[in-house]
Amino acid sequence: MPDPAPDNPLPLVGISMGDPLGVGPEVIVKALNDPALRQKARFVILGQHDVLEYAADQAEIQPYWWREPYDGRVAVRRGMLVADFDELSPLRVNGQREPNEIAGQASYRFVEEGVRLLKEDRLDALVTGPICKQAWHMARVRLRGHTEMLSIHFNTKRVTMSFVADDLRIALASDHLPLMELRNTFTIGLVHQPIDLLDQALRDWFGIRRPRIGVLGLNPHAGEDGLLGDEERRIIEPALAMARNNGIDVTGPLSPDTAFLPHVRARFDGLVAMYHDQGLIPLKMTAFDRAVNVTLGLPVVRTSPDHGTAFDIAGRNQASPGSMTAAIELAIKLANRRRERRTTAPEDRQASTPA
Amino acid sequence: MPDPAPDNPLPLVGISMGDPLGVGPEVIVKALNDPALRQKARFVILGQHDVLEYAADQAEIQPYWWREPYDGRVAVRRGMLVADFDELSPLRVNGQREPNEIAGQASYRFVEEGVRLLKEDRLDALVTGPICKQAWHMARVRLRGHTEMLSIHFNTKRVTMSFVADDLRIALASDHLPLMELRNTFTIGLVHQPIDLLDQALRDWFGIRRPRIGVLGLNPHAGEDGLLGDEERRIIEPALAMARNNGIDVTGPLSPDTAFLPHVRARFDGLVAMYHDQGLIPLKMTAFDRAVNVTLGLPVVRTSPDHGTAFDIAGRNQASPGSMTAAIELAIKLANRRRERRTTAPEDRQASTPA
Repeated sequence: MPDPAPDNPLPLVGISMGDPLGVGPEVIVKALNDPALRQKARFVILGQHDVLEYAADQAEIQPYWWREPYDGRVAVRRGMLVADFDELSPLRVNGQREPNEIAGQASYRFVEEGVRLLKEDRLDALVTGPICKQAWHMARVRLRGHTEMLSIHFNTKRVTMSFVADDLRIALASDHLPLMELRNTFTIGLVHQPIDLLDQALRDWFGIRRPRIGVLGLNPHAGEDGLLGDEERRIIEPALAMARNNGIDVTGPLSPDTAFLPHVRARFDGLVAMYHDQGLIPLKMTAFDRAVNVTLGLPVVRTSPDHGTAFDIAGRNQASPGSMTAAIELAIKLANRRRERRTTAPEDRQASTPA
Repeated sequence: MPDPAPDNPLPLVGISMGDPLGVGPEVIVKALNDPALRQKARFVILGQHDVLEYAADQAEIQPYWWREPYDGRVAVRRGMLVADFDELSPLRVNGQREPNEIAGQASYRFVEEGVRLLKEDRLDALVTGPICKQAWHMARVRLRGHTEMLSIHFNTKRVTMSFVADDLRIALASDHLPLMELRNTFTIGLVHQPIDLLDQALRDWFGIRRPRIGVLGLNPHAGEDGLLGDEERRIIEPALAMARNNGIDVTGPLSPDTAFLPHVRARFDGLVAMYHDQGLIPLKMTAFDRAVNVTLGLPVVRTSPDHGTAFDIAGRNQASPGSMTAAIELAIKLANRRRERRTTAPEDRQASTPA
């Protein structure tokens, strides 16, 4: 069933509500309570109306949306629709906030439908609220998280987790992996992929004609000429050579402990980190509450806030919507750019691409 | 030969010059060009006079020291003595700045003498200028760096690298090690030691009666309840339990990517990081140019700046003395506290220590 408003100038952004017991519902209703943000796009929340209403009540926010039972359709001419999954078992949202099987089932369903709508081209972007991996595990969902799920549905292994906060853009060579397991998976391809996908995203999505990419080392002092590890020489340098052969402007391996200093960072449009915390520690220090997770390598736009379910503060009206707001804003920006690129004839695109 | 001024109220601080081709000489002459700093202690620079003079010339600094050939004595009543190692082969300081065997030999000699003077109790503290590990390697010095050398000379394996910048204090469970080799050395003892030594240093050196220590996880999200690695359960949690049994106020494992956010950090007097870049990335972001390396576990005071030889900018009068100044200031502070503690009778010390 096609989007009933295909010529609507505003993009249609889907938002999966995330774990009903986490802070997802709260940050969604808070972020979109800003009328200026609501005017930039059309929205459909894939979630549970009673949970969103509870969060709004706690924050003393008047409902600004309308509700419809979700039946596979997302007809939104303007404003925000709550597509209510009322077939799901109800949850006690005023009770304990912790990993829960029913909540895991629910949050999985929201994303599953979001991905389906994306694949059918009925959404221009998907913003995913935070899920709980433990709850997915309890609900027998055998996936590490959103990124793996998207990679399966879009039938590509070339998917990279990246983060954007203002002009700081970081792609990860590895993400939700026990740190010491990196040893078994650290290959030239693993390092090359995020360089390649980040380069492409910076061109296509961020409009940077010739992106400058910095790649971090794995070891202290980037291995210090082989004294502190050989992965820089064996793996990272060959990956850089491969990228250079493909015309990418890439520099590295950079010493990780100075790569995020302002005068180093300023030399690059994007950075590639080798593992989760190498990228996430500096990201959160630089831009806590403004950082957005973006999946690179997909034919569609998917963003999410950089925080988790935060069960410790969920249900208490303490969560800040900053990162969710940033995730929605970036989704709109990328969706608009994607629409523009689609309407540009291939010849024109060729002509506007620098040699 | 004893210090000729044992009753001098000012502590005697030794400074090893570091690699003659690195920025060490430059940051030393710049840091101590501040008369206010020079009045807080007595100083002996273990190094080469012509190299220091060259750095001073370039920075248009008038010499404020006097020179004596080093003969094993360090007689300083006030001000700053350059103990000149004139038996060493001369180096072309106006030439190429890179790892060099002769420079490696020289920088090793300066530290060797500094450590000897420390052991003989003829210095109150040692500040070490940056050496080049590659140059030590070329000079056939089989040591990873200062910390390993101190550990051998003071005959203790219980030595921990830590960093101090304002109220941020970070001890490392592992330091100059290829990251993936951590797998083979990651034990309960490895994690417990920095907790124990940091607790002791915060009490003895920083005067904090009951230090609160935060310990980071190793894996993303501190393992996320075992989903992303088991080292938190197998190793870090038992180390925390051991520390608690010894009366230490310790919390963790903390999710590494949020541990350095101001509202988390504020809950602790010190943090323990599991590996070099987990501590050094946030440290340098928080306090570039103010951070000081302090060796924990020694019966003596040793500090150093947190930067290396920086050959790329050495010899060009571009280096900032900020970290060296901070290293000297902290050395003086800790030396004074050590003197106080030594002159306090054991009974009094007992009485002033809370239960």
